[in-house]
Amino acid sequence: MDDFRIDEIIKRALEEDIGYRDLTTENLIPEDHRSRGMILAKQDGVIAGLEVARRTFTLLDAGVSFTQLVNDGDRVKSGDRLVELVGNTRALLMGERVALNFLQRMSGIATRTYRLKELIRGEKAEIVDTRKTTPGLRILEKYAVRAGGARNHRFGLFDGVMIKDNHIRAAGGISQAVKAVRQRIPHTIKIEVEVEDLDMLREALEAGADIILLDNMDVTTMKRAVEMTAGRALLEASGGINEHNLVEVARTGVDYISIGALTHSSPALDLSLELVTDAGCRA
Amino acid sequence: MDDFRIDEIIKRALEEDIGYRDLTTENLIPEDHRSRGMILAKQDGVIAGLEVARRTFTLLDAGVSFTQLVNDGDRVKSGDRLVELVGNTRALLMGERVALNFLQRMSGIATRTYRLKELIRGEKAEIVDTRKTTPGLRILEKYAVRAGGARNHRFGLFDGVMIKDNHIRAAGGISQAVKAVRQRIPHTIKIEVEVEDLDMLREALEAGADIILLDNMDVTTMKRAVEMTAGRALLEASGGINEHNLVEVARTGVDYISIGALTHSSPALDLSLELVTDAGCRA
Amino acid sequence: MDDFRIDEIIKRALEEDIGYRDLTTENLIPEDHRSRGMILAKQDGVIAGLEVARRTFTLLDAGVSFTQLVNDGDRVKSGDRLVELVGNTRALLMGERVALNFLQRMSGIATRTYRLKELIRGEKAEIVDTRKTTPGLRILEKYAVRAGGARNHRFGLFDGVMIKDNHIRAAGGISQAVKAVRQRIPHTIKIEVEVEDLDMLREALEAGADIILLDNMDVTTMKRAVEMTAGRALLEASGGINEHNLVEVARTGVDYISIGALTHSSPALDLSLELVTDAGCRA
Amino acid sequence: MDDFRIDEIIKRALEEDIGYRDLTTENLIPEDHRSRGMILAKQDGVIAGLEVARRTFTLLDAGVSFTQLVNDGDRVKSGDRLVELVGNTRALLMGERVALNFLQRMSGIATRTYRLKELIRGEKAEIVDTRKTTPGLRILEKYAVRAGGARNHRFGLFDGVMIKDNHIRAAGGISQAVKAVRQRIPHTIKIEVEVEDLDMLREALEAGADIILLDNMDVTTMKRAVEMTAGRALLEASGGINEHNLVEVARTGVDYISIGALTHSSPALDLSLELVTDAGCRA
Amino acid sequence: MDDFRIDEIIKRALEEDIGYRDLTTENLIPEDHRSRGMILAKQDGVIAGLEVARRTFTLLDAGVSFTQLVNDGDRVKSGDRLVELVGNTRALLMGERVALNFLQRMSGIATRTYRLKELIRGEKAEIVDTRKTTPGLRILEKYAVRAGGARNHRFGLFDGVMIKDNHIRAAGGISQAVKAVRQRIPHTIKIEVEVEDLDMLREALEAGADIILLDNMDVTTMKRAVEMTAGRALLEASGGINEHNLVEVARTGVDYISIGALTHSSPALDLSLELVTDAGCRA
Amino acid sequence: MDDFRIDEIIKRALEEDIGYRDLTTENLIPEDHRSRGMILAKQDGVIAGLEVARRTFTLLDAGVSFTQLVNDGDRVKSGDRLVELVGNTRALLMGERVALNFLQRMSGIATRTYRLKELIRGEKAEIVDTRKTTPGLRILEKYAVRAGGARNHRFGLFDGVMIKDNHIRAAGGISQAVKAVRQRIPHTIKIEVEVEDLDMLREALEAGADIILLDNMDVTTMKRAVEMTAGRALLEASGGINEHNLVEVARTGVDYISIGALTHSSPALDLSLELVTDAGCRA
Repeated sequence: MDDFRIDEIIKRALEEDIGYRDLTTENLIPEDHRSRGMILAKQDGVIAGLEVARRTFTLLDAGVSFTQLVNDGDRVKSGDRLVELVGNTRALLMGERVALNFLQRMSGIATRTYRLKELIRGEKAEIVDTRKTTPGLRILEKYAVRAGGARNHRFGLFDGVMIKDNHIRAAGGISQAVKAVRQRIPHTIKIEVEVEDLDMLREALEAGADIILLDNMDVTTMKRAVEMTAGRALLEASGGINEHNLVEVARTGVDYISIGALTHSSPALDLSLELVTDAGCRA
Repeated sequence: MDDFRIDEIIKRALEEDIGYRDLTTENLIPEDHRSRGMILAKQDGVIAGLEVARRTFTLLDAGVSFTQLVNDGDRVKSGDRLVELVGNTRALLMGERVALNFLQRMSGIATRTYRLKELIRGEKAEIVDTRKTTPGLRILEKYAVRAGGARNHRFGLFDGVMIKDNHIRAAGGISQAVKAVRQRIPHTIKIEVEVEDLDMLREALEAGADIILLDNMDVTTMKRAVEMTAGRALLEASGGINEHNLVEVARTGVDYISIGALTHSSPALDLSLELVTDAGCRA
Repeated sequence: MDDFRIDEIIKRALEEDIGYRDLTTENLIPEDHRSRGMILAKQDGVIAGLEVARRTFTLLDAGVSFTQLVNDGDRVKSGDRLVELVGNTRALLMGERVALNFLQRMSGIATRTYRLKELIRGEKAEIVDTRKTTPGLRILEKYAVRAGGARNHRFGLFDGVMIKDNHIRAAGGISQAVKAVRQRIPHTIKIEVEVEDLDMLREALEAGADIILLDNMDVTTMKRAVEMTAGRALLEASGGINEHNLVEVARTGVDYISIGALTHSSPALDLSLELVTDAGCRA
Repeated sequence: MDDFRIDEIIKRALEEDIGYRDLTTENLIPEDHRSRGMILAKQDGVIAGLEVARRTFTLLDAGVSFTQLVNDGDRVKSGDRLVELVGNTRALLMGERVALNFLQRMSGIATRTYRLKELIRGEKAEIVDTRKTTPGLRILEKYAVRAGGARNHRFGLFDGVMIKDNHIRAAGGISQAVKAVRQRIPHTIKIEVEVEDLDMLREALEAGADIILLDNMDVTTMKRAVEMTAGRALLEASGGINEHNLVEVARTGVDYISIGALTHSSPALDLSLELVTDAGCRA
Repeated sequence: MDDFRIDEIIKRALEEDIGYRDLTTENLIPEDHRSRGMILAKQDGVIAGLEVARRTFTLLDAGVSFTQLVNDGDRVKSGDRLVELVGNTRALLMGERVALNFLQRMSGIATRTYRLKELIRGEKAEIVDTRKTTPGLRILEKYAVRAGGARNHRFGLFDGVMIKDNHIRAAGGISQAVKAVRQRIPHTIKIEVEVEDLDMLREALEAGADIILLDNMDVTTMKRAVEMTAGRALLEASGGINEHNLVEVARTGVDYISIGALTHSSPALDLSLELVTDAGCRA
Repeated sequence: MDDFRIDEIIKRALEEDIGYRDLTTENLIPEDHRSRGMILAKQDGVIAGLEVARRTFTLLDAGVSFTQLVNDGDRVKSGDRLVELVGNTRALLMGERVALNFLQRMSGIATRTYRLKELIRGEKAEIVDTRKTTPGLRILEKYAVRAGGARNHRFGLFDGVMIKDNHIRAAGGISQAVKAVRQRIPHTIKIEVEVEDLDMLREALEAGADIILLDNMDVTTMKRAVEMTAGRALLEASGGINEHNLVEVARTGVDYISIGALTHSSPALDLSLELVTDAGCRA
């Protein structure tokens, strides 16, 4: 939809890579040379970012045809064909690295997200992302999390309230903080309070917090938090949750589990673009 | 130096995160409230990006004091203090996530780079990065690679020539390609040719390539490539090189080993910012 | 805080007005000439935008001193002095119109907001703004609404959900729409449904809507809506509410009353800047 | 013509409103859903800004068809159909508010301009606008003034000279000021001097001013000013002119009457967009 | 004054030249190294652009001291010292080329302008520039023309009217064209008509043109044009005027002589920056 | 290829020239008026920049047809037709000056480059450009140099190393400087050292410099430099080389001759656009 926002990100990436010219391609490939290509998976994973990859090529040459053989969110196996490309060879070569850089990173995030989500399939708890994203790419990375099957937390500081330690101290207590914020924010926004123990949890519940983040609690305490809350607020587990402890956290009965590593530490998914030249002339 | 270029990247990240306002902090923290804080390592690693973190805070409030206790490139241990911060609490809270997002990613890259480099300490071969970087952050990620002790490959398509398969085919052979490019590029730029076997290597050497990339060769072939080349060109090993095979690749005698995972798959280094409020008034 | 965002808006306005140069001032006022000036109210009202006015001048010349004699949100009477300015005469003359354009518009909004709010002082209902703002100035206009004493609704399409007619039809009903959205949005965001009659209200309540917008209802129906809802959702009255019917709408017991005219039709507050030259030299 | 300048303003407005995504529409309306819609007048008035509204939709989806049933400058009655829209439902819903925000503001200005102009139909005097415009939208607001039937004054500080009080004092008198400016500006630009009484008027005439602004003069004085000038300069009345005194000011014989309220205080014209879904498929 | 507009031009130039880093300087010059330098004239000429040069260095390092020994508009001789610089060596080396590129081009324009102006010293006619400027640098080049002692013509298409051949044909004649434009433009703008012979001149005078451009007329015809006009309009000679025919054109009695070559073909003035390292430490 | 980079330069130029509107053309030429036009050479020369000219028009109106009758790099004679244009008259008139400003400057550079190159036809030495380009237009000017038949030197500070006097002093000698840089730059970049005499040349050769710039040497010394070097490095002559001494410099046997005047002092090539209206309607 608002592709011009994505286009700005892509143009910046193309400018970064191409600079003032592609010394190799512009000097070796005839201007009207055409090729056919294929984007292939070289690892199993979940795909995200195909539209970003498509626009990378079409921004360089509107005539590039980019045919998706899979969709964002699809699982692929090593060797699967993801996209068939036909078009101007210079555009294909000049866009290749940037398109793959986007697609590999986004698919890496979708893949890890999907794997974590599979671990707790059937549980009530949902995995959510965090603000620990790559600067400048949050819109793409949050999309990749959704493509991987998890949910987004607030996008930034403007579309959710998260009352932490420092806020509480400055306000003079949890209930003062919740009350003060409630009076000043849009009524469309919920209030989340970060708590470290059950005393703070009790205070947050009494203050009427909509969501309570259980920060770095052990599983036993989390269970007691769930009981104590008894549905009066949404509970979000956070802090050091990974492949190893995800299932037991989910089983405590919390509503959400937030995992920063989805976006800050997912390895790229290995993909490649293989070109065959001589795709015939454009006419 | 040309800080306005870095500042643009930081501003974009702050705008992305803060949006039109920080609903929590602006509503709870008094405008002139001040705090003291500390950035701490929560993992062992190598630090990169302190200047980016500093500017993140000072762009929000020029009065923030940011005292480095370590420098980029330094090794730190979990628990080490990296930075002491004193300043306006709103600025510290609003800049925290963005500053850490930069610092953790850059330090993650420096850390992995350092570890790989340590594995081949004493060998002639040097590790270099690739163009497989995060779109929009290449300038920072290439810096982090240097901070970790490795070298940069070309920055983009404009400051180096890399003749690949498709270029060779379009030009009608390696020697035609090298010759054509040599006549058309600045005389300050070297020419690199990607080869897949020893026949191609021979051709590239005869064509006068300055650098030859040995693409996905096994170690035995690489050794023969080194012998065959006998110093007539720089040799760069590339493709699937990681912790497990790095040492044997280095021992083949190649000059450079390029590793995309430095930038596309290094996990973030775990860092945190802890704030203590009531830092006294500014006067 | 994130002044660079406001600065972009101001710079755009200065560029629009000054263009390539101020033909009158640059040719008549010596470069180091200094003046003292005063911003005065020429109408009674409520002030908003002083920081924007200040930055307009300091962006032109960092040495301009801008001393506020009142604060945003203060009520002023015709003839009151709002700001004392001392600085480079060229900067004062070149910034004058732009600074006043911002300040008059923002104060106009704050003034009308304040007057409406006074009409229902003591009632539970709160006045909120809408997305009917001047393109490009929403951040400033929403601020002015707060300065006038009312509350902000969602900022845009990204920080609140508003399910309208067309969404309901596409989703196949209110409950389907609420359910579908609930599963896909950040858990920090509430869901608002726009209803036109009491049947739709009942459906929205059953679907678990957090907020219900009563669109263009007469006062009698609104009262019944309040009874029917009985606190299970927040109620927002909307559509054609103005000075004449505001009180009776507030007395229906709704929680929020949204008024587009706050931002799309408030007349500017009349202010002027009077300069006295010969403020002495800078040294 | 230079649509890319208008497009920048529109894109900024769309980004402001849509942010990173439209939570409601993207989650409820299928990607290929299409609707038919109609922009309707809900008040009598004069229309301006149809091209801006059109581009708002086509920037979101180039396939939206936008058929004007009226033109800019046309008078419409409440209930009149202005535009028929057919296209992707997401684009129509996401562009609706921004398109209307532009169209309502511009039509509000055109409407008030038209009404004032009608009051003095047949008089020689022409109504002109001022620099009291909305920051960032001057190009659109000056266009709306023309659509309403009045004339534009200078666009900014760069395409006209206006010598005021402070300039005169710094230059040492009106004739010195006029002379100094005449020597330094492009010969394509006229010189206007602001005068407060008939003595100043005499001085300005002697100095050879091309245009003289009669600032806040009463009608009797204005008449004498017209006599005294006797066609030697263009005369512009300014200051506190509105519906009530416009006719008598016009009858003094001045050439131009400038009215800031055209742009700073015209209420928006009430318009609405009504959508009917199920417009059939695109094929 | 509105330095942020100039700063954008300078930043673009610095980014163009420095790219992602200065490979030589950053790797050889210690970060806190300081130098003293001198900008010297290597040709006789007139200087313009010192403020642009200053800001080029201070944008790189606010601590650079830049002491002007001459002012814009001053005549200098080969060997003269223009500026003394002291500051961070990296900033001086990285800014050198960009600062000189600006200063040499602007001084080149000022120099040629000055020389032409000297040729007709004492004549009434004034030299003016044209729109034949370097794309993106018009604001600087028009400034340089003023520094060289000549006048500016309109800045662009928006601050002056120039009715040419095609406009006349489309409007149906000179008088129709002048009348139509007069009714639609700001009353602050004069109307210029381009004429090719004395018949057209007569028509333009009758139509009430404020300025008439005599396009490519021979000197004899120009003289008759001056007589025919007898002060009823300003006359501007244009087309192929240079060192060789300037004096005789001036003596025809025209008011203005426009010369495109001032900005499109002035050679750069030869200047150099000489650095002496070891300027002492900053403390 | 990466046309969006060129488009940004063109848009900036169009905005600079058109500003908020073309007062003449918009008020005189009907919106759907069409014309046919021809770009003609008014001097002999070499053409460069046709694609930039084309995009200038098509950015204003995508429907303009621009048919090249010559190509970049072609030699033309005064009177030759270069381009045939058909399209919307407003677009043609509003784009004319900007398109010609680009085309004349670029063709001016190509023309001078070609003439210098012709002087040394048959010699081994190649002419290269420098960083003495117009700020903001380097990408276009370096292209024009190639169109004129010469070679580009490094684009900026980031794609080549040039060790000068100050670097050598700071590093403690040529060999230290070369060694330090060699260890820190991408292995794709060659190292150039600037030398003033034969002693420095010897040092540079021993240090292993890839390229050596002979700065302001007389022809006799250059010849000895060529003998001394004996192919161990590329030699570049620089400083004060022009039409008069180019041949004898080339005959010394150096590899490259760099000439700043190609870009900083080439006069524009005289071109014109002649329009014939009434090109028929678009349908």
